[in-house]
Amino acid sequence: MESNKNNYVVIMAGGIGSRFWPFSRSNYPKQFHDVMDTGSFLLQLTIERFEGICPKENIYIVTNQIYKEIVEEQLPFLGEEQILLEPAGKNTAPCVAYAAYKINQLNPDANIVVSPADHIILKESLFRKKIETALTYAEDGNSLVTLGITPSRPDTGYGYIQFEKEGDEVHQVIQFTEKPDLATAEKLVESGDYVWNAGIFVWSAKAIMKAFETHLPEMHVLFSKETKKYFTDLEQEMVERIYNTCESISIDYGIMEKAKNVFMVPSNIGWSDLGTWKSLYEVKAKDCDDNVIDGNIVTYDVKDSIIKTPKERLVVVQGLRSYIVAEYDNVLMICSKNEEQKVKKFVEDIKKQGKTEFY
Amino acid sequence: MESNKNNYVVIMAGGIGSRFWPFSRSNYPKQFHDVMDTGSFLLQLTIERFEGICPKENIYIVTNQIYKEIVEEQLPFLGEEQILLEPAGKNTAPCVAYAAYKINQLNPDANIVVSPADHIILKESLFRKKIETALTYAEDGNSLVTLGITPSRPDTGYGYIQFEKEGDEVHQVIQFTEKPDLATAEKLVESGDYVWNAGIFVWSAKAIMKAFETHLPEMHVLFSKETKKYFTDLEQEMVERIYNTCESISIDYGIMEKAKNVFMVPSNIGWSDLGTWKSLYEVKAKDCDDNVIDGNIVTYDVKDSIIKTPKERLVVVQGLRSYIVAEYDNVLMICSKNEEQKVKKFVEDIKKQGKTEFY
Repeated sequence: MESNKNNYVVIMAGGIGSRFWPFSRSNYPKQFHDVMDTGSFLLQLTIERFEGICPKENIYIVTNQIYKEIVEEQLPFLGEEQILLEPAGKNTAPCVAYAAYKINQLNPDANIVVSPADHIILKESLFRKKIETALTYAEDGNSLVTLGITPSRPDTGYGYIQFEKEGDEVHQVIQFTEKPDLATAEKLVESGDYVWNAGIFVWSAKAIMKAFETHLPEMHVLFSKETKKYFTDLEQEMVERIYNTCESISIDYGIMEKAKNVFMVPSNIGWSDLGTWKSLYEVKAKDCDDNVIDGNIVTYDVKDSIIKTPKERLVVVQGLRSYIVAEYDNVLMICSKNEEQKVKKFVEDIKKQGKTEFY
Repeated sequence: MESNKNNYVVIMAGGIGSRFWPFSRSNYPKQFHDVMDTGSFLLQLTIERFEGICPKENIYIVTNQIYKEIVEEQLPFLGEEQILLEPAGKNTAPCVAYAAYKINQLNPDANIVVSPADHIILKESLFRKKIETALTYAEDGNSLVTLGITPSRPDTGYGYIQFEKEGDEVHQVIQFTEKPDLATAEKLVESGDYVWNAGIFVWSAKAIMKAFETHLPEMHVLFSKETKKYFTDLEQEMVERIYNTCESISIDYGIMEKAKNVFMVPSNIGWSDLGTWKSLYEVKAKDCDDNVIDGNIVTYDVKDSIIKTPKERLVVVQGLRSYIVAEYDNVLMICSKNEEQKVKKFVEDIKKQGKTEFY
């Protein structure tokens, strides 16, 4: 299949993924790791997943400028202009805007897929079909399309999307619901009217720029004022200035929750956001004691646990139930799997002590 | 106090201490570690404890020949003839015999204190007083004297000694009881007639040689046949031959349990054999959550645990109750404190795999 030259893929690769500490570290976050132990870094897997959707030169990575060299090393086929460097993390809306306004400068007929760098999708060809469906729908230049995942459990860590029953491959979105509490999540899942928000969006450059103009007008002004500077030596300096003043806000909160022209493609594509240790545990193969083991590890009476340690170290573990044991780059963490939300707090506490080598 | 030139101290430093793995390793066992984190290795602490008991030149270390260099490094004041090198571990009886027959060759009036290298004793001056008492008693040349510890709990890991009530500083021993089961241990402790066997013995060279002649006559023959070779270049070759044929047996089982002339000095000297992680836990200072922490460690909701890891590594532990977390020389062990008897099994299993760098 020849890929459509108007299609573009924008990968958001600037996150720190601190819930995945100690593997995900501020100087080497999750998306640059071979988390799945398949020989490929997550960012690479994400890029490969879009093969056939767009030409390679239409792939753009948005990341923090401190990760420039890692991206160049992991994706050597990218041209310099394909790596968009944010001077600071300002959540997803500025990231989406930067890529959209820049691509629009090159090709006003661009259709753009926006995707996080660090998710996994097990059903790759179905994923591509769903992206094609969304791209076809978005070609009208008016619709904001998102992929929706049928929820398999009342997860309180995801956003939910309510959609109109009518429609086959594409449904009108009624509303977005931010991370709900457990009781609400249970109701939403039971109703059958909701899907998970996977954070994968498809739209034309035109449509998303219009949405910025309507819902985030200040950001629209910032990114559209000096459009001639995109793809020039002056771009980085302009971006520095824009990021200095622009709001830090998510694309979900800033646009998706407010826009009326939002559509959803149901996509049961074996998706996991791999946001946490528990989600890695869920997607990995388990031994007969329901353990996920990655390293030189011997277990005695250990069940329902995930242990990931450097291969050169011998690790003997006895008597744990539902634990995470993770060592990476001179940090060892042992944490109950059911308390994994505390990982973020561990990282915050270490940050307070200023020990940069450990977070 | 001037030390008696007829007094000798023999330190048994050939053990492997596998219950203390991964710190105690076959190439660097417990007695050569700074287990208490005081800046001194256990063997050093043991030697220092005997200050004033005998001149420094009367201290003898019996160890496996593979530890020769470690002993020389840790105790540089020792002369070459003070380090007795066993070609193989054959339990404590050959070790005791080797030292006794050798020392007797130098000084037939020798009184000998035999002590393990890896115990800790918190009340040092009381310990020295008890050793003096035992030495005075042993001077008659006829008695085998042992220190007895009043049991503080029904420990099933120690040997017990039943003694005659009559006597003040020294009591006649009635019988030795090997490591009992819990019910028996409880009875022994309750009776008040038993003390723990600390494995610290005091006797004259004459008395112990006579005991070997009576109870282990073959071993007596082996060590007394070529006495002129002690303190010569021919000693090591002779010892190699002796160890090739001599029985592997403990001094307790081979002699103490059979001899009639055994006496006990009650010695509540703050003794611990530091045999296991639990015993280290018992003697160390605890934080407000009853944890013993040694390393760069942050705990969240951890109680009653011992965590000892390399200082350069950050270790974050959440949600453990009564656990051992220990890392040393590229081996990490996590084990329930109440299952610590399994540590020996871990080491055996690793041995079977032939991974010498890990045990």
